[in-house]
Amino acid sequence: MAIKVGVVGATGYAGVELLRILLGHPAAEIAAISSVSYTGKAVSEVYPSLQQICDKTLVDEQAVVDACDVVFASLPHGLSENIAEKCDQKGALFIDLGADFRLYNEADYTEWYGGLTYRDTALHQKAVYALPELFREQIKGKKILGNPGCYPTSIGLALFPLLQSGAVDPDSIVIDAKSGVTGAGRGLSLTAHYPECNEAFSPYKVAMHRHTPEIEQTLSIAAGRAVRVTFVPHLLPVNRGIVSTIYAAGCGKQSAESVHKILTGAYAGEKFVRVLPLGTVANLKNVKYSNYCDLSVHFDGRTGRVILVSAIDNMVKGAAGQAVQNMNIALGLPEDSGLQFVPPAI
Amino acid sequence: MAIKVGVVGATGYAGVELLRILLGHPAAEIAAISSVSYTGKAVSEVYPSLQQICDKTLVDEQAVVDACDVVFASLPHGLSENIAEKCDQKGALFIDLGADFRLYNEADYTEWYGGLTYRDTALHQKAVYALPELFREQIKGKKILGNPGCYPTSIGLALFPLLQSGAVDPDSIVIDAKSGVTGAGRGLSLTAHYPECNEAFSPYKVAMHRHTPEIEQTLSIAAGRAVRVTFVPHLLPVNRGIVSTIYAAGCGKQSAESVHKILTGAYAGEKFVRVLPLGTVANLKNVKYSNYCDLSVHFDGRTGRVILVSAIDNMVKGAAGQAVQNMNIALGLPEDSGLQFVPPAI
Amino acid sequence: MAIKVGVVGATGYAGVELLRILLGHPAAEIAAISSVSYTGKAVSEVYPSLQQICDKTLVDEQAVVDACDVVFASLPHGLSENIAEKCDQKGALFIDLGADFRLYNEADYTEWYGGLTYRDTALHQKAVYALPELFREQIKGKKILGNPGCYPTSIGLALFPLLQSGAVDPDSIVIDAKSGVTGAGRGLSLTAHYPECNEAFSPYKVAMHRHTPEIEQTLSIAAGRAVRVTFVPHLLPVNRGIVSTIYAAGCGKQSAESVHKILTGAYAGEKFVRVLPLGTVANLKNVKYSNYCDLSVHFDGRTGRVILVSAIDNMVKGAAGQAVQNMNIALGLPEDSGLQFVPPAI
Amino acid sequence: MAIKVGVVGATGYAGVELLRILLGHPAAEIAAISSVSYTGKAVSEVYPSLQQICDKTLVDEQAVVDACDVVFASLPHGLSENIAEKCDQKGALFIDLGADFRLYNEADYTEWYGGLTYRDTALHQKAVYALPELFREQIKGKKILGNPGCYPTSIGLALFPLLQSGAVDPDSIVIDAKSGVTGAGRGLSLTAHYPECNEAFSPYKVAMHRHTPEIEQTLSIAAGRAVRVTFVPHLLPVNRGIVSTIYAAGCGKQSAESVHKILTGAYAGEKFVRVLPLGTVANLKNVKYSNYCDLSVHFDGRTGRVILVSAIDNMVKGAAGQAVQNMNIALGLPEDSGLQFVPPAI
Repeated sequence: MAIKVGVVGATGYAGVELLRILLGHPAAEIAAISSVSYTGKAVSEVYPSLQQICDKTLVDEQAVVDACDVVFASLPHGLSENIAEKCDQKGALFIDLGADFRLYNEADYTEWYGGLTYRDTALHQKAVYALPELFREQIKGKKILGNPGCYPTSIGLALFPLLQSGAVDPDSIVIDAKSGVTGAGRGLSLTAHYPECNEAFSPYKVAMHRHTPEIEQTLSIAAGRAVRVTFVPHLLPVNRGIVSTIYAAGCGKQSAESVHKILTGAYAGEKFVRVLPLGTVANLKNVKYSNYCDLSVHFDGRTGRVILVSAIDNMVKGAAGQAVQNMNIALGLPEDSGLQFVPPAI
Repeated sequence: MAIKVGVVGATGYAGVELLRILLGHPAAEIAAISSVSYTGKAVSEVYPSLQQICDKTLVDEQAVVDACDVVFASLPHGLSENIAEKCDQKGALFIDLGADFRLYNEADYTEWYGGLTYRDTALHQKAVYALPELFREQIKGKKILGNPGCYPTSIGLALFPLLQSGAVDPDSIVIDAKSGVTGAGRGLSLTAHYPECNEAFSPYKVAMHRHTPEIEQTLSIAAGRAVRVTFVPHLLPVNRGIVSTIYAAGCGKQSAESVHKILTGAYAGEKFVRVLPLGTVANLKNVKYSNYCDLSVHFDGRTGRVILVSAIDNMVKGAAGQAVQNMNIALGLPEDSGLQFVPPAI
Repeated sequence: MAIKVGVVGATGYAGVELLRILLGHPAAEIAAISSVSYTGKAVSEVYPSLQQICDKTLVDEQAVVDACDVVFASLPHGLSENIAEKCDQKGALFIDLGADFRLYNEADYTEWYGGLTYRDTALHQKAVYALPELFREQIKGKKILGNPGCYPTSIGLALFPLLQSGAVDPDSIVIDAKSGVTGAGRGLSLTAHYPECNEAFSPYKVAMHRHTPEIEQTLSIAAGRAVRVTFVPHLLPVNRGIVSTIYAAGCGKQSAESVHKILTGAYAGEKFVRVLPLGTVANLKNVKYSNYCDLSVHFDGRTGRVILVSAIDNMVKGAAGQAVQNMNIALGLPEDSGLQFVPPAI
Repeated sequence: MAIKVGVVGATGYAGVELLRILLGHPAAEIAAISSVSYTGKAVSEVYPSLQQICDKTLVDEQAVVDACDVVFASLPHGLSENIAEKCDQKGALFIDLGADFRLYNEADYTEWYGGLTYRDTALHQKAVYALPELFREQIKGKKILGNPGCYPTSIGLALFPLLQSGAVDPDSIVIDAKSGVTGAGRGLSLTAHYPECNEAFSPYKVAMHRHTPEIEQTLSIAAGRAVRVTFVPHLLPVNRGIVSTIYAAGCGKQSAESVHKILTGAYAGEKFVRVLPLGTVANLKNVKYSNYCDLSVHFDGRTGRVILVSAIDNMVKGAAGQAVQNMNIALGLPEDSGLQFVPPAI
């Protein structure tokens, strides 16, 4: 019998991407979907791509919780605790694509998210930061999952094994990341107005993006001590995809080969992380519309710096795909259920 | 047991799109793939998007024919007869994504394809022009299928029912079509050089594109008499997709409603043709990466002209997806096997 | 002594393009600029491209009228009559880039612009529809100029000589036009939200765009009788530029050569209209950021249809550049003053 | 009387951009232009944007040298010495947009440019590396100018004053740069094939780009000692523009304000370098089609790193515009002659 899944916030970009993936999931059945802006409309009126495929009517949040065994939420921060609580009470699995269950340290959340606090601390203690390749064992059987942000996913996967093995200096990390415009969501803004971002390029929130503490949380776990990074995101004139170019001083006698060996070792057997052959470069075009994270390894022998390039689709591995991967792990399904789609070459 | 399928010309854009689709086909197994330019290499070296998904080595054409029950070919015109002959001899199904088996009238082929002729006429008599929604019954059980061109697919689906029912004047048809740059293939040209086609737009081969006789062949069948059209393709600065805007004088008392009714009637029950609700407009973004053809219907009451907008993904419904749909029909499989992927909203 | 010019609505896309052009005009001095949304701010805060070039403070509409001998307005329809009146009273030249002074027939204005009427009919009788190459003599010395719309400019220039000479059938005209996204203005909308229009394409306002009566007004003058056209605009994923592909049945014995001859004759000596050599195709990339209109001529011998391709920069020849050209004509300056910038090749 | 200028290699992207700028230069007259691939053709056949503006016939290199007082060359490396020699003999000013006169240390040239050597050392001693804002005095009166590369221009302008004043640690510099596709030139390659680079993004030549020694040469002059940097360029899916994001550890007590002060001081009075107000971010859209370099300053207080963002148009300040600026300086003309065009807002 199919697992009843639901999406709260189904008409945002991450929400509708969840629908696309869940519609192809062999074990799941979409039982209910909600939207604040479009309640009562068919989702296929909002997204005509779904016509005759999913013409389900958008309901309210409560109706989703009531109808489902698994609830995904893709909402602005500050709105997920309520849903988590309701899911907790009924025993449903809750997977939050927002920021409310990502930071273990409440002070970080308060500092970076406008002074907000955790209303129910016990609830947060039940939650896990769900980056599957790094924290798989902790995800199994959990009921509240904080699905990682897009940038932190691409960066955490690249750096974790190197910090864990002491191959790079934790104090030297500079991350220059570039994200497609879907990362800014569906809400209208001058930033995402076509003539303003087409044939344009610039960083934004320089060294003060909210994903910074989330990145540092993962890297600190890896290094076994507090890590601070310089993180600068840029807006890239493409629809989808993130490329993070990561710089760190090598420790001891590193080389492209030594670093590559650490990463291939760490991700041997992983379905969704591809450590590319030395001499090739990760490119977002190769992971678009898929759940893969491509990692390429480079070494600047002249300065001793390790350079990592990490490419994901921000909407899939950086959001909806990883959320489904997390559902699969939490429920004991095959980890790639519903995620076996092949990235298009073009 | 899986059907052994193969692709000749697997490293062109249509070829690699066939791989993407066939890799997800529940009944097919890719037995062999070939490429003239990259024989001996792994296809995933040519297209890193396929790494760890399909690392198959590219062989030669003969090896594909030998190994397979179904052979797809995606080659420049003039190269498919040989393969068709070999498939015919061994009883394999041959699906040609090129132009060699599309035109029933050899004189048209000779006129539009540089003076080439049909070497083996008997072979051509075994072939069918395989536009599934229009000629499904003729495809069943056939062994040589001429898979339609991208423009002719988008245009034939829109106009066929209207010409068949006499709703529009066959002498009045003007087709203004726009195609993404993958339509020009992977071969290098100044036309497809990024700085030359980005932030640019123009028609090409004005009123002399090779798809003209193929379009007219389908429309003539529909009208029951010879139809000539004005067909002007344009190069659109997007990767994928075709939008054909089609103009024709309405016959008798037509309206948006009357035309819409004809199309919804014609395509009732069709999985891959979506006649959109009146008042909405077809957009290539809603069919990208899918096998759908979206049709919208408009009527210019001030001049009496019917306006149809037809949107497909040129690489899927306009090439590889339709080829798989044709394989499914010819072999008696469910028509949407391997084609159930949902178009992404973005 | 410099001519004091001003722009009302200087922070819209057409407004800021006027600034760019006027800043390089040898005879003009920008005396005042206004904006409803940004009054009191420097225009270079709104558009950092202008930093250290034009840091002028935005004032209100009245201050512009008071300070200037020439007033350009780029406003939503319905807001220009007031300004025209004030300019008329003080004897200033008023050039309206909006729609309020384009239609001679008030009934057309009322029908297509939401029921609005002309408040002051006498004012409208002083105005001229200012498409320079077609109505230059009427512009000279006039004080109220209705600067043409972008689509009507590209279409009027292409068809006027052919209708005037009877070379094409006025009842057969189909216009398939494509515009870059700046045409939709700077106001936020889902239509112009980057992920919604990038890698997308579709028509909009099919056969009901407000430029239709303006197009027909010009063509009717040319033909000497009422002309109705089918006009379908499309949104093109580029920043700037319009390509209009125009279809009309040839009258009598037409050919590419005969049509080409009419157009080269009509535009001999014109600085800003380039009739391209036969065998080449107009492309928006060749006119971007310039005041040129490129016209190419094609003939479909199989159906007898004439095909014209007309390319302009919607922001320059389709708006701000043409407005400056009109100012030059009205004031007796060299027509290309301030407009001699060369289109970039890329 | 006009200065007779010529361009060798006029049909490459930098060459044709030179034409665009020189056509608007008040003191220059284009006397001759050459092209190896298109000799005998009109340049406007190759670039229809120039039709009726510059229909000059392309001649050979020698004819350009013979006809001109100033010769610009835009050629692959290894081809400029010959021309420099001829110009030297006749006393003409030679401005090389290629790499042959940029590196003072021949060993660097040999190492990074495939083993090539300087044939005529005396000739190279007459040359100067011509980055105007940094080396203006040395350019005046010189006859052989090595026009800087695009990346080195954007980087040198940002870092020079900070290294000179000791505000940043020379051993800590990481440069993450992104360039539009015109940077790859007009030569066909899969890299610049539209479907391969549209909706794609990746670095290339990671830590081994040929501009590295040129960057280090400038920075070493500034620091007064050898500087080595990590430099990683990326291919950005836009036509024009470079954004370099530069990271360096601050020395002593730095802040955004202290760094900003150094840069505003260094560039006070400079026409083409705009140090943006604190709190704003440089964006390539604001400098497109202009000779400006926009610099924004940021400080990561959490890690003590200075972050600079430098934006130029790679074809103007990064190539043709700077070359004209250099001509103006060398000849004692106003430095902004022919360069006063305003960057379009969109």
